[in-house]
Amino acid sequence: MLTVGIIGATGYAGSELVRILVNHKEVDKIHLVSKSYEGKSFSDIYGSFNKIVDFNCQNSSLKELSEICDVVFLAMPHGIAAEIITDEIITNTKIIDLGADFRIDCIDTYEKWYEIKHKAENLINKAIYGLCELNAAKIKDYSLVANPGCYTTCSILSLAPALKYKLINTENIIIDAKSGVSGAGRSLNTGTLYCESNENLKSYKVASHRHTPEIEQELSKISGENICLTFTPHLVPMQRGILTTSYTKLKNNNSYQEIYDAYKEFYQDNYFIRVLENGKIPETRWVKNSNFCDIGLVLDKRTQTLIIIGAIDNLIKGASGQAVQNMNILFGFDEKTGLDLVPSFI
Amino acid sequence: MLTVGIIGATGYAGSELVRILVNHKEVDKIHLVSKSYEGKSFSDIYGSFNKIVDFNCQNSSLKELSEICDVVFLAMPHGIAAEIITDEIITNTKIIDLGADFRIDCIDTYEKWYEIKHKAENLINKAIYGLCELNAAKIKDYSLVANPGCYTTCSILSLAPALKYKLINTENIIIDAKSGVSGAGRSLNTGTLYCESNENLKSYKVASHRHTPEIEQELSKISGENICLTFTPHLVPMQRGILTTSYTKLKNNNSYQEIYDAYKEFYQDNYFIRVLENGKIPETRWVKNSNFCDIGLVLDKRTQTLIIIGAIDNLIKGASGQAVQNMNILFGFDEKTGLDLVPSFI
Amino acid sequence: MLTVGIIGATGYAGSELVRILVNHKEVDKIHLVSKSYEGKSFSDIYGSFNKIVDFNCQNSSLKELSEICDVVFLAMPHGIAAEIITDEIITNTKIIDLGADFRIDCIDTYEKWYEIKHKAENLINKAIYGLCELNAAKIKDYSLVANPGCYTTCSILSLAPALKYKLINTENIIIDAKSGVSGAGRSLNTGTLYCESNENLKSYKVASHRHTPEIEQELSKISGENICLTFTPHLVPMQRGILTTSYTKLKNNNSYQEIYDAYKEFYQDNYFIRVLENGKIPETRWVKNSNFCDIGLVLDKRTQTLIIIGAIDNLIKGASGQAVQNMNILFGFDEKTGLDLVPSFI
Amino acid sequence: MLTVGIIGATGYAGSELVRILVNHKEVDKIHLVSKSYEGKSFSDIYGSFNKIVDFNCQNSSLKELSEICDVVFLAMPHGIAAEIITDEIITNTKIIDLGADFRIDCIDTYEKWYEIKHKAENLINKAIYGLCELNAAKIKDYSLVANPGCYTTCSILSLAPALKYKLINTENIIIDAKSGVSGAGRSLNTGTLYCESNENLKSYKVASHRHTPEIEQELSKISGENICLTFTPHLVPMQRGILTTSYTKLKNNNSYQEIYDAYKEFYQDNYFIRVLENGKIPETRWVKNSNFCDIGLVLDKRTQTLIIIGAIDNLIKGASGQAVQNMNILFGFDEKTGLDLVPSFI
Repeated sequence: MLTVGIIGATGYAGSELVRILVNHKEVDKIHLVSKSYEGKSFSDIYGSFNKIVDFNCQNSSLKELSEICDVVFLAMPHGIAAEIITDEIITNTKIIDLGADFRIDCIDTYEKWYEIKHKAENLINKAIYGLCELNAAKIKDYSLVANPGCYTTCSILSLAPALKYKLINTENIIIDAKSGVSGAGRSLNTGTLYCESNENLKSYKVASHRHTPEIEQELSKISGENICLTFTPHLVPMQRGILTTSYTKLKNNNSYQEIYDAYKEFYQDNYFIRVLENGKIPETRWVKNSNFCDIGLVLDKRTQTLIIIGAIDNLIKGASGQAVQNMNILFGFDEKTGLDLVPSFI
Repeated sequence: MLTVGIIGATGYAGSELVRILVNHKEVDKIHLVSKSYEGKSFSDIYGSFNKIVDFNCQNSSLKELSEICDVVFLAMPHGIAAEIITDEIITNTKIIDLGADFRIDCIDTYEKWYEIKHKAENLINKAIYGLCELNAAKIKDYSLVANPGCYTTCSILSLAPALKYKLINTENIIIDAKSGVSGAGRSLNTGTLYCESNENLKSYKVASHRHTPEIEQELSKISGENICLTFTPHLVPMQRGILTTSYTKLKNNNSYQEIYDAYKEFYQDNYFIRVLENGKIPETRWVKNSNFCDIGLVLDKRTQTLIIIGAIDNLIKGASGQAVQNMNILFGFDEKTGLDLVPSFI
Repeated sequence: MLTVGIIGATGYAGSELVRILVNHKEVDKIHLVSKSYEGKSFSDIYGSFNKIVDFNCQNSSLKELSEICDVVFLAMPHGIAAEIITDEIITNTKIIDLGADFRIDCIDTYEKWYEIKHKAENLINKAIYGLCELNAAKIKDYSLVANPGCYTTCSILSLAPALKYKLINTENIIIDAKSGVSGAGRSLNTGTLYCESNENLKSYKVASHRHTPEIEQELSKISGENICLTFTPHLVPMQRGILTTSYTKLKNNNSYQEIYDAYKEFYQDNYFIRVLENGKIPETRWVKNSNFCDIGLVLDKRTQTLIIIGAIDNLIKGASGQAVQNMNILFGFDEKTGLDLVPSFI
Repeated sequence: MLTVGIIGATGYAGSELVRILVNHKEVDKIHLVSKSYEGKSFSDIYGSFNKIVDFNCQNSSLKELSEICDVVFLAMPHGIAAEIITDEIITNTKIIDLGADFRIDCIDTYEKWYEIKHKAENLINKAIYGLCELNAAKIKDYSLVANPGCYTTCSILSLAPALKYKLINTENIIIDAKSGVSGAGRSLNTGTLYCESNENLKSYKVASHRHTPEIEQELSKISGENICLTFTPHLVPMQRGILTTSYTKLKNNNSYQEIYDAYKEFYQDNYFIRVLENGKIPETRWVKNSNFCDIGLVLDKRTQTLIIIGAIDNLIKGASGQAVQNMNILFGFDEKTGLDLVPSFI
């Protein structure tokens, strides 16, 4: 049975981690760290946890946690993880970082897109990119897992088979992505007030969102070519969910059936990936509150365009669920442990 | 391990039952009955169940199910259960009826409010009213459980202790109730179209809603007096949740602390009831996707009014969760089995 | 043609004022004052005003505005208006204050509920309470109009005829009120973030909301008796709209028709009040984006309770629309000028 | 002063027409035709029109209306207009058809995409495509105006200048479009029930939506080349609004400034088109309840992609507002008459 720590437990990703871990049969103790809510009962912050998590948030350091925890989840803004993780810490414990600090292999790329100095250059190559379906075999040998971004997870999972099997051109890939508002987190911001987000739709950070280099990096590895693509996020008036609509050009004029078969084969051992049958299109509600990623394929023969639609719950498969999936892999548990969540479409 | 049947599986209450039961460790086989979707895979109707419930809906009769199932849930419009349940059936199997047919003891009251003839008068006194917290001890001796209505559950649980301990007058009780739209079910209706329900608030069936006699009947039993009250439902633009705000007049000028203590005592053995501490007020999000009922108490000293606020998830504690709780009681399982759902506030 | 000033133009009430006034045929110049956005174009703050209001916010004092404006609207948190209004100012110009400072006649009551010292005691009796339907005849003789609160407007308009004609008891009045989120304004607050307000329903400030004494004061005047009532606000996941459900006890056993006739008579000259016919119930969408107040009446004969349901748009009739209606009265324009807004129910 | 008829007045587009026309200073009589609601007061169907439109729906034929109306709007499902319009009718009156029957020049294309036989082949070339900004000069000479589709309006207005000035390739144009739910109309459909649309995002009719040939036809005319593009609609949980994100490849490596200037020039005389300055991105709330179309331009230099974002209110500029704009053009009124609607962002 594991002792687990969560730093940043009172954000949305943190609270989802708590929600999943309290019902995880291999976890028996959870330490919740929150600077802002130190000494306050977790159920006073989130009334949902009344009678379930009534103990207090503490303000332990990562170092302190690393001495008592089997694994520590970090759910903090980028930049902080790189400041506090050390070699000693990842020798003592496993770290699953939900932030961006260890996702980008190339430090220049990181520093350019995130506009800060990376504080732990030496640890970058000790981290594994924790997109479970692609890297499961490697993850278990690492102590530091860089849990992927939400847009990133959905985008990469949607495109990986098509690139792996060279079904599409590596040029001219367009990802039109849409996210629910919880992706923006719980910090105060006029733009995420109810009256500013509700009954509104907008794109933002067009062609400049920080998940772009992360997507390109992983897709380049899969395809063996250098991929430069267009990524446009949109904010949708709903709480959870990401839908990505990817537009790609067929390389070899494959049939729908060949493409579908390639996707099925690529994901044949991955429970959480559901490749939908011909004519079925993903909807975010079908994956809501679950760790599934649904993928639908449409071949537009008029324009030789393969349209790939992916859907995940941004807080589960796009953050905390995948983090627990990574924990399961790290400790050799069945990947589904604690993640047998039936989507709640209503 | 139980074999379970659900008639009306493709409605909202039915699909929530499926969602709970597939993860219930004492259930190993589920028969799904749907007239409208006979022969269709459940996951074709609700994509959320892809890879989870991929078997087909059937069109078995209740009689057929009763011969192979340990328990059958009925999730159908009122009137039908009374037509199809027989003495023989409730000898063969346990029935948990989510409809209204066996909730009302007095057949005249039923026929007046529901405006139809009751077809199974002889079975009314063989049914137990399945409000678990009040009737747990009796339920296990019955074969036919009338699962309470959603508004009803929240209203009765809010008011029961105050009436039991004679803290309030039995006259002049007002229940102002608010429900999310899923309470209206999945049938086609202009009023529940997105553009008609969203960004709108209305009351409906003011002083004439069918849950009124059910609330009065049970509260009369608890108080030992004949209760006639005002009940006003409202439709709120959200999917799940019921909040009831009950206005009552103090009888003996009790203090807040005395009232609070009475509520805590009354529900001391009931895990799913959370009586909130002074100053805390229920919100539907804190119980969303769970079987909890939260109760908050405010004493308005200016007017000697005790305001009691209750919150439930209408589809869980107000329907399918309570139905499973009843199943657990019927078969002697821990009441929480399959219902250890942590509310998902986002 | 009027020159108009708005202090606090960039809040929600302020921006709604601008929206109404730009199409008001008697207004030809508007000064927008915003401390936080001084020097910034109004259409940079609210893109909706692009090509319509492209001039800048200024940071003029009320005194400066009073010298150039025919009327100045104040849309600021309570306490500030009382600090800046002087006798000289209300000699120079007309003031319509959307805040609470001059709504309460009794300074002790104000200071008790608002928990601050009132800074302009001498001006309180120079202000008129601007609930247009009740005070139109008096308003035009004043220079300082206290525009009523949103909950207050809906509550008073709902109850005034019943109290005026002594149809109901003055004791045991209960107002269960529900508001959309825009009522909370645009200031940053975790509780009004999209993910905290959406898909949630809660009551708040139960039996302690500051609109209570304002409602009691005006209803006491109308009834000629001292009224002490219970008022409970709720926050509803929608942007606009207030619905109040008022529960009252019949005094003289009047029939529905008598009550309906009394309401029709009371409001016979008031265009913006729509007393709905028997069987029709107000919905917030029917008044959305308009200055109407809809009132519906239900007589619950089982409990001798008269249930009165009122609906307004909180930002229009509950704030900026009524403020413009007050301006129309002050300057002798047709009350409807600029307010011929057809509700946009979608 | 005009006498106006509306056939299909009780749908969403129809009711928006009524809402605009009751405040149109050149209109003094409106006939409302509704088969389903014949003899019923319009304000009984839509309570918003209480005291504003209290007269009854009638069941006149188009022929009858054509004899008494200056202009008749048709807001009906496709196929019906082609059945009922005749040469005689368009000699008697002006027709503005909000349906699809006269939008497509090529009858084969129409019949292929709409899967019905066109019933009025002889009238197709007597109709003008009523996209006001492109065809204003011609419209006034016609008696039959084919009002464009909602997605179509936003897509064409976004792309027209780039194609006209040959800034982009005519190949590989991708339009990722998103619409609020009112676009689906008021007919009963499980998919547009509140609980099925809310908190959900999906694409639908991927690469097969009927607005595709309409967009291609008009863009082909503007560019002088045959355009075949990819169009993917999405359903967004909000009531109003369309946002289109168009992805195009630069042809001649123009700078952002050159592109921006081209757009400004193209639309210099069009009040309802707002080309946003560099760095500003359209949001549907900024055009809500108005006839504006906002256009934003982003140049992704990493991939030489010009991303063009357009936003309209689907019921106004995408339907009823544009229909009134067409009426204004037909009768020589100022284009803005009755359309000086300030967007209501909340």
